[in-house]
Amino acid sequence: MRVELINTGNELLLGTVLNTHLNFLGEELFQLGLRIQAQSTIPDGQEIHRAVADAAARADLLIITGGLGPTRDDLTRDIVAELAQMPLEIQQSIVDHLEEYFQSRGYQLRENVKRQAQVPRGATVLENRWGTAPGLYLHPTSGPLQGKHLFLLPGPPRELRPMYEACVKPILQEIYEPPEDRDITVLRMVGVGESEVEHQLVPLLQDLPELELGFCSRPGEVDVRLIGSQEVVKQAREIAEQELHEYIFTTTDQELHEAVVELLINLDQKVVTVESCTGGLLANRLTNVPGSSKVFLQGYVTYSNEAKCATLEVPKEYISGYGAVSKETARAMAEKARRLNKADYALATTGIAGPSGGTEEKPVGTVYIALSTQGRRTMINKYRFPTDRETFKFTTTQRALDMLRRALHGLPQSRR
Amino acid sequence: MRVELINTGNELLLGTVLNTHLNFLGEELFQLGLRIQAQSTIPDGQEIHRAVADAAARADLLIITGGLGPTRDDLTRDIVAELAQMPLEIQQSIVDHLEEYFQSRGYQLRENVKRQAQVPRGATVLENRWGTAPGLYLHPTSGPLQGKHLFLLPGPPRELRPMYEACVKPILQEIYEPPEDRDITVLRMVGVGESEVEHQLVPLLQDLPELELGFCSRPGEVDVRLIGSQEVVKQAREIAEQELHEYIFTTTDQELHEAVVELLINLDQKVVTVESCTGGLLANRLTNVPGSSKVFLQGYVTYSNEAKCATLEVPKEYISGYGAVSKETARAMAEKARRLNKADYALATTGIAGPSGGTEEKPVGTVYIALSTQGRRTMINKYRFPTDRETFKFTTTQRALDMLRRALHGLPQSRR
Repeated sequence: MRVELINTGNELLLGTVLNTHLNFLGEELFQLGLRIQAQSTIPDGQEIHRAVADAAARADLLIITGGLGPTRDDLTRDIVAELAQMPLEIQQSIVDHLEEYFQSRGYQLRENVKRQAQVPRGATVLENRWGTAPGLYLHPTSGPLQGKHLFLLPGPPRELRPMYEACVKPILQEIYEPPEDRDITVLRMVGVGESEVEHQLVPLLQDLPELELGFCSRPGEVDVRLIGSQEVVKQAREIAEQELHEYIFTTTDQELHEAVVELLINLDQKVVTVESCTGGLLANRLTNVPGSSKVFLQGYVTYSNEAKCATLEVPKEYISGYGAVSKETARAMAEKARRLNKADYALATTGIAGPSGGTEEKPVGTVYIALSTQGRRTMINKYRFPTDRETFKFTTTQRALDMLRRALHGLPQSRR
Repeated sequence: MRVELINTGNELLLGTVLNTHLNFLGEELFQLGLRIQAQSTIPDGQEIHRAVADAAARADLLIITGGLGPTRDDLTRDIVAELAQMPLEIQQSIVDHLEEYFQSRGYQLRENVKRQAQVPRGATVLENRWGTAPGLYLHPTSGPLQGKHLFLLPGPPRELRPMYEACVKPILQEIYEPPEDRDITVLRMVGVGESEVEHQLVPLLQDLPELELGFCSRPGEVDVRLIGSQEVVKQAREIAEQELHEYIFTTTDQELHEAVVELLINLDQKVVTVESCTGGLLANRLTNVPGSSKVFLQGYVTYSNEAKCATLEVPKEYISGYGAVSKETARAMAEKARRLNKADYALATTGIAGPSGGTEEKPVGTVYIALSTQGRRTMINKYRFPTDRETFKFTTTQRALDMLRRALHGLPQSRR
């Protein structure tokens, strides 16, 4: 069953409102065994006619959002009813609902709002308990949309999302029998590049029957998506895990900082952070996780050289001799912070985020990350991430979190 | 000039990655006087052929994102080159760039990566300093795409966004002459609600001829968009500034933390931060701004009670008596941190981010923000932001930054 999604709304095209419908519906439909094959965003008004006719020529199921409101440019209902050859009729129960909705909020019911009570003859009304405009399900028996399934849903996500759950999903489960034997797994990896992952995996996986293999690269991270029969996905996953296990930090939708906090909680280990170039991002990511207060004791953002010396007793000679961005300074920051807090681990970052501040010897993007561990030798890695300031900070925290992750798992530290 | 946007990528249709391209490009193009008339998201692979041909039949300018990477399903370059009748050729300078890019990161250059050095004959290469795949600008002189303008850009937003600014915008400004008497201004405000802004502005602005007035609400911020002739936008802006000047932190595209760092630099004032519930986000936002090392001395993330007492000498009786989330603790944190660093200002946050940890007296979302100022009485504001953890943290930093902004401007502190 081919599915397409059409989102209407000028505010989406102007970029004033972020379109999150595809993100939500793509994930939801996939769970039912359906995939959205194409999505489009179009303006309010007559362009809906073209978009619906085009999409219906390709698809079996159309979901159309927006344009169900009371104003003059809300034309979705009218245009789809015409294409479906299902004339509009006022439904009194909807008028009653609207009257009650407005009364309970102390508003007056304007005449234009009653347009929302129009229903194409033979359509199913999808009740909207979260707003005014009801949704509609049409399955026309004649005309250009004959045999297609069409869902019309309101644009605001806070209405669309609960309506999907309450009204759309049950109908989809009735009209579509998913293939039984079908699975998806996403392996999220850190500390390895996309082309490297592909180079290693493709030869090993290419003979698995009907395996859909996808790659997605983000700062400091690569995701590998495996789709196919349960048996094939299981095999592919085993092969990938055997080959790349040390890089895989999760097979759920966890972010790296969430995986690390979960590990810390499970192992009852405490951590502190000492940040120069990452400026608090590392602490911020860790404290984004509910429950992180159990394992995160304290963070230092020793941005100035004076702060490094005064708060963490980094010797002044280190700064003047090796430099603030050096192995020695990173080590001193991490070790002192760990001891001050009696923590199990301390992560320290010091580097040159740019755009200025680089030298020939230490160009912009140079960074040292130190991991001090109770009872072990301090690990220090040097990297270079020549990129914009925010990506530099984020990538540095990815590598820092990965050093801690590897330590918690007892994996060897990567040399890269 | 009709503009359409095509985003490719299975991960967008599966809902695993949120599509933010329309949001970004819609806003950027509007500033050049262009509007995106339709956008579509399609899978990797052959469907690009259909989508580009369809869109080109309607549009003059096409922007196509994604599918320029090294893997087998990255087909955008190949398909568009074929439709444009511009055969692909390896460009050695791109191979050199790729080699340098991989070498500087300690990775090996795999053969598959070299596909990214293919350029349709006659196309303009859009340099990618933020990743590996260069962008392309095509203006075919024959075939089905004759006379159209096509931009091919990489999918990752952190590459696409700076490339748009550096490479696409200058070409657009050359090929498109915007209507002359047309202006847009966005007033960004903090510390006031959307409905309040609308209530105050609409009666004052509704008689200005052909003024398009838009509101956009974000966490801890309201944007007002004024579109019209230069004269009308100027008048509207003057009225809005007179009415709401104390809330407006910029009329440029600066973020609040950028505006605050600029103020600090201009006034040569130093700041430190002491964070409990915001967990480093405040320091992180300040240090996102290039040049912030001139004014940001140090940040403390005193997450545990022990850290508050040990690092900032908050009296243990405060924690046991008033609580870690209290006016007294916030004051002690800010004042001690300011004095330790001889700073002009210190901002402290302590609150309950949730989802757990609330009490009847201090429910989830309760937060105290203290601003200690050299030679002045410490200001302490109490708020309640009952929302998810990350929005709570962000909204708290918006209010903290606003307290500092008001102090730097000599404005009275808001009581809200």
